Amino acid sequence: MKLTILGCHSATPRNNARPTSQLLEIRGHLFLIDCGEGTQVALRNVGAKFSRIKHIFISHLHGDHFFGLPGLISTFHLLGREVELHIYAPKGAKEAILLLLKLSGSWMPFPLIFHELESKESQLIFEDEKVSVRTIPLQHRVYTNGFLFEEKQGERKLNIDAVQQWEIDVCYYQNIKNGKDIVLDNGKIIPNDQLSFPPAREQSYAFCSDTMYLPEIVDIIKGTRVIYHESTFLQSNVELAEKTRHSTALQAAQIAEKAQAEALILGHYSSRYGNKNLFKEEAETIFENVLLSEDGKEFLFEN
Amino acid sequence: MKLTILGCHSATPRNNARPTSQLLEIRGHLFLIDCGEGTQVALRNVGAKFSRIKHIFISHLHGDHFFGLPGLISTFHLLGREVELHIYAPKGAKEAILLLLKLSGSWMPFPLIFHELESKESQLIFEDEKVSVRTIPLQHRVYTNGFLFEEKQGERKLNIDAVQQWEIDVCYYQNIKNGKDIVLDNGKIIPNDQLSFPPAREQSYAFCSDTMYLPEIVDIIKGTRVIYHESTFLQSNVELAEKTRHSTALQAAQIAEKAQAEALILGHYSSRYGNKNLFKEEAETIFENVLLSEDGKEFLFEN
Repeated sequence: MKLTILGCHSATPRNNARPTSQLLEIRGHLFLIDCGEGTQVALRNVGAKFSRIKHIFISHLHGDHFFGLPGLISTFHLLGREVELHIYAPKGAKEAILLLLKLSGSWMPFPLIFHELESKESQLIFEDEKVSVRTIPLQHRVYTNGFLFEEKQGERKLNIDAVQQWEIDVCYYQNIKNGKDIVLDNGKIIPNDQLSFPPAREQSYAFCSDTMYLPEIVDIIKGTRVIYHESTFLQSNVELAEKTRHSTALQAAQIAEKAQAEALILGHYSSRYGNKNLFKEEAETIFENVLLSEDGKEFLFEN
Repeated sequence: MKLTILGCHSATPRNNARPTSQLLEIRGHLFLIDCGEGTQVALRNVGAKFSRIKHIFISHLHGDHFFGLPGLISTFHLLGREVELHIYAPKGAKEAILLLLKLSGSWMPFPLIFHELESKESQLIFEDEKVSVRTIPLQHRVYTNGFLFEEKQGERKLNIDAVQQWEIDVCYYQNIKNGKDIVLDNGKIIPNDQLSFPPAREQSYAFCSDTMYLPEIVDIIKGTRVIYHESTFLQSNVELAEKTRHSTALQAAQIAEKAQAEALILGHYSSRYGNKNLFKEEAETIFENVLLSEDGKEFLFEN
């Protein structure tokens, strides 16, 4: 699982301080999460192949998470895209995007499919044989969701030495990977666990976008291996966090600790702090493995 | 008159290739012309004072001229702007901007005044004692206007030597600048042209945005001192220009030559050409003073 931070700064875009957007590569999918102004340029900078992005998840409709989407869709159009594009976003996004496309005289040559979100409960919004995505209802100044991305259990790994020793034909390998026992020609049953190793542990990623401190989300994200949680402020400005419905680095760490995560990624930093290490230091007082997002940074999480 | 090119590239924004936006400083006004995605970052890069921008002119609603506007307005809001903002844009812009602001839960603390354009005739859309702005109807794939900015005749310049020689009281200086003759205490009339010099010749700037070659606009812009005219293509791709309703560098030069301009600025370059000098060379076969726009470049035009 690879997470690329396209932008991790709050509020207004500045040079070298892009608003929120992330690219999550998971089991062959390339999911775009949030799309602040300038995201399409950030995507080019990290060499992302635009046609591989088929699903875009928008947490809320504040400009620093959403205003790059009309331009990105227009660019897909100009580049002659044909593959379909799914957009998961709060209700209202469809009306706005379609109006902007209409005003610009654009006719989309590819299927543009909106999945509008308005539930206040966690919902399964995407699922295939490899990955599921569900919403994490958050509390911000407007309707907001985080997103929980979970790999499904993968195939077991073939024990090559064992299958060769038993002279098992290659046509049974897939059955073994699927967990089946093998019956030899002489009737002897070889249990699957003698022919294969357990699959790699599934990865999971919770994107907790703009939100006030909300311990209720732990019910949804408990056991998630990697958590991104916004940390707009430091605890010294907790009253500002409360007023603007954002979180502090300490609160983000409390969520990660309660959820028993393996890693916490911080981001959405307010521009008032010059030194991002302050966020890390504050979160580390509660949670050990704290990572700082930076524009253009890649995080690779091995299974 | 100072023109700052914020972005001068066509279609999709790329690193170091911003879409169209220009900042025109003329007689104390700071006019923003077009607002492609990323314009607010470009404005920061050139050190523009946001609160001085009170009038924004949008030529048409294609993304590369318009999709930076919602974010810029949101940023004005976040920065606590109080001064009013006038937006001159094709009909539809108001509906789109207000919808995006509503969805992002923004309430504008400053007056946001839309002047929606839909006439196919040239219209006076702004005027004060120093400057006038009128539309230049263009022909593109969607409803499009260029804009003609004209300084009004300024004050005459005081001939200090003469007024001191005649011992004229300082309280009459403004009358002299306004072109009035002076009657001395002894009844002698001193004609104004003995007491002042003519005002500097007025500057004028025509922004000819995306358009097919349209010699009819010369009726409107004839005598304009500085003309920007899009040159998306070279003449070797004139059939592409016709198909997409854009112009070539040669056609831009033809317009400048017919309008008897002093300077022609080219821009809106297609990314297919590696060398911008090709545009200049092509235009110079017809018109002498050809300037190339570049992102971040300033042009100063003395009266």
